[in-house]
Amino acid sequence: MAVDRLNLIFAALADPTRRAILARLAVGETSVTELAKPFKMSLPGISKHLKVLERAGLIARGREAQWRPCRLKAGTLKEVADWVEQYRRCWEESFERPK
Amino acid sequence: MAVDRLNLIFAALADPTRRAILARLAVGETSVTELAKPFKMSLPGISKHLKVLERAGLIARGREAQWRPCRLKAGTLKEVADWVEQYRRCWEESFERPK
Repeated sequence: MAVDRLNLIFAALADPTRRAILARLAVGETSVTELAKPFKMSLPGISKHLKVLERAGLIARGREAQWRPCRLKAGTLKEVADWVEQYRRCWEESFERPK
Repeated sequence: MAVDRLNLIFAALADPTRRAILARLAVGETSVTELAKPFKMSLPGISKHLKVLERAGLIARGREAQWRPCRLKAGTLKEVADWVEQYRRCWEESFERPK
């Protein structure tokens, strides 16, 4: 995977609102208005977070004029899982090692 | 896990030099001087990255006066793996779904 892409993905995940948006979208696609509700955040505020997530490839937005549903692009999270998986041996060894 | 901690971890991972430092430390602990070599970076430059990694709990540094070896704290990467694992169902479903 391109280095820049991982930079964008991790930077996008470094914010609790953006992680909460992903958790909401894991349940199913929804509109920006619905997404904004639990966060007590303005639509422009949420839209800014959505742009960061979209640029990182973590969400996609529909092209329908009135209702542009957001949906999770879970394949990008699999890329995070694949990246971190290379360290599995390290944490398994560190847990086995006596303190 | 505390929300702030995940913020620090993901922010620390959003940089290619810091990810490369983790990859080097996965091989074994080493000194800052050794770590700096492949990056053509000044010691203060590398030290700045190490501070970010240390604050996120991704590395630890020895307390020996002359040689302060850096080592990977792989358990923190397991926390990333655990976080992303909650989305496994989503990416498995998205790969099964016809395009």
